[in-house]
Amino acid sequence: MAAPLPEVVVFDVVGTLFDLAPVESALAAQGAPPDTLEAWFERLLHSAAALTLAGEFAPFAEIARSTLATTSARVGVEVDADAVLASFRELPLQPGAREAVGTLAAAGIEVAALTNSGADQARSLLERSGVLGSFAEVLSVEAVRRYKPDPSPYRHALERLGVCAERSAFVAAHAWDVVGAANVGMTAIWVSAHERIWPLPRRAGVEVADLRAAAERVLAGPPGA
Amino acid sequence: MAAPLPEVVVFDVVGTLFDLAPVESALAAQGAPPDTLEAWFERLLHSAAALTLAGEFAPFAEIARSTLATTSARVGVEVDADAVLASFRELPLQPGAREAVGTLAAAGIEVAALTNSGADQARSLLERSGVLGSFAEVLSVEAVRRYKPDPSPYRHALERLGVCAERSAFVAAHAWDVVGAANVGMTAIWVSAHERIWPLPRRAGVEVADLRAAAERVLAGPPGA
Repeated sequence: MAAPLPEVVVFDVVGTLFDLAPVESALAAQGAPPDTLEAWFERLLHSAAALTLAGEFAPFAEIARSTLATTSARVGVEVDADAVLASFRELPLQPGAREAVGTLAAAGIEVAALTNSGADQARSLLERSGVLGSFAEVLSVEAVRRYKPDPSPYRHALERLGVCAERSAFVAAHAWDVVGAANVGMTAIWVSAHERIWPLPRRAGVEVADLRAAAERVLAGPPGA
Repeated sequence: MAAPLPEVVVFDVVGTLFDLAPVESALAAQGAPPDTLEAWFERLLHSAAALTLAGEFAPFAEIARSTLATTSARVGVEVDADAVLASFRELPLQPGAREAVGTLAAAGIEVAALTNSGADQARSLLERSGVLGSFAEVLSVEAVRRYKPDPSPYRHALERLGVCAERSAFVAAHAWDVVGAANVGMTAIWVSAHERIWPLPRRAGVEVADLRAAAERVLAGPPGA
């Protein structure tokens, strides 16, 4: 007997559904060296996780602004933060994103988003790309004030979606997010296009090349089934 | 009546007592672009914090190796990981480190180290620089298997040192570490030489320019006293 397919597939948003290329261009236009985005974004993510570990919370946009000041001082360039942060409103969908969402919807599987950024920002990106209507929920860590990969945001999403972890899948382009989803029992899928090499000592979840392959992987049934 | 001085000052190790310049040189010798260290180290720190949030643990050296593979793939260079990781054994003391430790010892204040890396690695760096004898304890997150700024490592250090948070100070060159120490009630001192601009939305602790100034700040008594 075939194992049942997931009822819901939850996608991470920034870097997974959406491409950060416009942020990279905005930084380059300000004279920042090529790897500034990488250094800044890792500092931003670490700062968010660190605040959660220390029992504090600040909105993602505020951490983005304060970490950008430090990263640009470190790489020795003066950056117009407003111009760089504005570029976050213009992220395009990643290759295969539209098709993946369409494939899942056609198979009767609910699609949702769970982001470390603001819910309004994520919703506006999805709307701008014309796919917001396909999403049952757009959820943010703001609701629980603890950043992924803390268990709280994933559990909050499962509760809001009315699904148990075992009947859900989570798709992300970041290994740490995959580990967090697997930790609460979701079927976790790592899209390798961004990180290329799994960055953590121990593997978690399954690996696919892009979002189209992630949707196909979901429809193929649970791993080991 | 003057408030009492701290009984113990705990220092972070990698990046605070020791300078990462040899790691930067090792990366440059492998053809890595100038900001690779920044991108890698932020990814390494984020991965460590993320594992803690997801309830997992892996040794710092293992996360260093796995994140280096991802970061070097992202910046498009092939890096000999053994050569880069070996450079961590040759870190020199930061300017003012020796003097800071001497000043505190002369004032009868105990000095300790608390590191996210391995205890053996930290101890060997201190020994190589001839200051190990000044340290009452060299403590690592390995003992609690949760990375700073989770409260556990700081509390473990206080317990091992037999001091309450209120009679201790913590010195770090990383804002997230300062926030973690302040969160458990330690007097927290941020050495700004590395990050230059405080990277988090809300300030915590007091700011000094270097380690010598950190020791002087400790001897000046608790903030607000």
